[in-house]
Amino acid sequence: MNEFSHGGQVEKFAEELNCKLEDIIDLSSNINFLRPKINIDFNTIDISSYPTYDKLYKKIANRYNVEYENIELFNGGSSAIFTLFNHLNLNHCTIYSPAYMEYKKAAKIYNYTLDSINRFTNITRAVQQDSLVVFVNPSTPDGKYYDIEEFLLAWDKLNCTVLIDESFLDFTNLPSVTKYINKYKNLYILKSMTKFYSCAGVRCGTIISSKENINKLKQNEPMWKLSHFDSSYLQEALNDKIFLNTSKAINIKNHLLLKKVLEESKIINKIFFSDTNFILVQLEGIDAVNLQDYLKNYKILIRDCSNFDFLDNSYVRIAVKSEKYIKELKKALDNI
Amino acid sequence: MNEFSHGGQVEKFAEELNCKLEDIIDLSSNINFLRPKINIDFNTIDISSYPTYDKLYKKIANRYNVEYENIELFNGGSSAIFTLFNHLNLNHCTIYSPAYMEYKKAAKIYNYTLDSINRFTNITRAVQQDSLVVFVNPSTPDGKYYDIEEFLLAWDKLNCTVLIDESFLDFTNLPSVTKYINKYKNLYILKSMTKFYSCAGVRCGTIISSKENINKLKQNEPMWKLSHFDSSYLQEALNDKIFLNTSKAINIKNHLLLKKVLEESKIINKIFFSDTNFILVQLEGIDAVNLQDYLKNYKILIRDCSNFDFLDNSYVRIAVKSEKYIKELKKALDNI
Repeated sequence: MNEFSHGGQVEKFAEELNCKLEDIIDLSSNINFLRPKINIDFNTIDISSYPTYDKLYKKIANRYNVEYENIELFNGGSSAIFTLFNHLNLNHCTIYSPAYMEYKKAAKIYNYTLDSINRFTNITRAVQQDSLVVFVNPSTPDGKYYDIEEFLLAWDKLNCTVLIDESFLDFTNLPSVTKYINKYKNLYILKSMTKFYSCAGVRCGTIISSKENINKLKQNEPMWKLSHFDSSYLQEALNDKIFLNTSKAINIKNHLLLKKVLEESKIINKIFFSDTNFILVQLEGIDAVNLQDYLKNYKILIRDCSNFDFLDNSYVRIAVKSEKYIKELKKALDNI
Repeated sequence: MNEFSHGGQVEKFAEELNCKLEDIIDLSSNINFLRPKINIDFNTIDISSYPTYDKLYKKIANRYNVEYENIELFNGGSSAIFTLFNHLNLNHCTIYSPAYMEYKKAAKIYNYTLDSINRFTNITRAVQQDSLVVFVNPSTPDGKYYDIEEFLLAWDKLNCTVLIDESFLDFTNLPSVTKYINKYKNLYILKSMTKFYSCAGVRCGTIISSKENINKLKQNEPMWKLSHFDSSYLQEALNDKIFLNTSKAINIKNHLLLKKVLEESKIINKIFFSDTNFILVQLEGIDAVNLQDYLKNYKILIRDCSNFDFLDNSYVRIAVKSEKYIKELKKALDNI
């Protein structure tokens, strides 16, 4: 597993097990297992013309209670991160870790000196002045939501630029920091549409900030970045208001079910508190690789977390999926 | 019209004329008016998983007779250009002009000192050492294909990095410079899939270079850039081998038809030689804006070329489209 490899290795897993993709129980990827209702005949979309994104911008701005001029869209969360790191052009980056690993990659590529603060043991540690602070909230791979109001104030005093990654906030009913974009002039918020709207194949990520910041960011961007197909998909997904609430509710219900299954297992030493659609656990008596191997008997794929900062091969992440999948996991864990 | 605005303003035009989009005769956009045969049920594409691009890379590499490791894909030609300018991080840029206007924008954003060489009057002018040379071939907005073999040699001697934009070469049977990627170590070639494959809404552009250059370029890129929908569309488009040849042939036939119509018109002073699917003309007795206004009576949209370097408001570009559209243009020009 290389430093930046990612959970979604389902295809390789299916190949290795010599079975169909749809037979895999993928608990490694933290994409919503529920999908919005999409009523589009994609073949009728006119892709010959250059796309305009006005409607999509308005819908996304509306979804997050900000104005059209407060957002800029990118072809995915990773592209948004890379572009922002490049655009801000700062010298130092502080990542509250463990965190989504593309941040480390972006810091390296754009020549930021990197400082990782251990969220678990040392979260109040001082941050260097003028740093680009990255905080994923709810965090990954553990899913904890932090009340960061006081942090925002402290970072601001240190003249830090702040990026809050709220890619998993859609799964919760917890408050966003979007309300502070006019209070803190160096505050950026990332919304990955991929996770909640169950569309890793649709490349769209949103940066939210003050109109002034967004205007500066926009000036360096090419005219067409997003697929017309993707834009149509997301607009439809955002129209599905029932999805927003039922999907949250079902994920919360299944989260409790999964947690119970994990609590009943003898190979788990610690279950991390999570506010979102995945759970980090520390194993005992077995390591991540051996558990992954054992679960192959059940075609179950989970996320080895050994490549996250401050974690080791005793940690795995398990995503909230359907009741059926959770029951399969229970069967596997009971038989270990 | 602002400096970087683009032909594809069909929606605004339809709004202004208060008519349906499909009633507009769009001769401004240089997208292929013929489309490949696409047999995809988009609703069956699994977009929940992170996409893998292996198959698409192989198909595109195969299409352009290079290897998998010689290409890097971007979410559109513009994104490819911006990324390359940023990645190369040079100081000086020479654009053989007029040219696709995103180049000027990229040079400005990434702080290149800009030098424009007038292709029409001064093409043999010396290039500054160590410059990033941009040459669009076939060129835009005139469509002329240049034999640049000797130029490549000269630029190489000056230690220039060279970007040849072959976005319109697919419409011709003329040779590509891809065969030189191993001869000239600083040679990059851009293939925009958008134009020939009639899919401005599908965001995919290809950079071709030596394996070493591509490997360096890849290292700074996020993992997922392209839409799964777009990837599926393009793979299907590339499968349609009949399209490749018939589409070229029909465009060449209609090109001749359009040229004849233009030759017969009294308002045209000069028709530029073109090897591809659009024709640049210099008007006489009427300027671009007035001709655009007049053509509104026929719901015909053409490209005002006054914002291209070395051109003025006497130049317009007219794209090759269907016989029906060309006949409509003839009617309009005859009645002027």
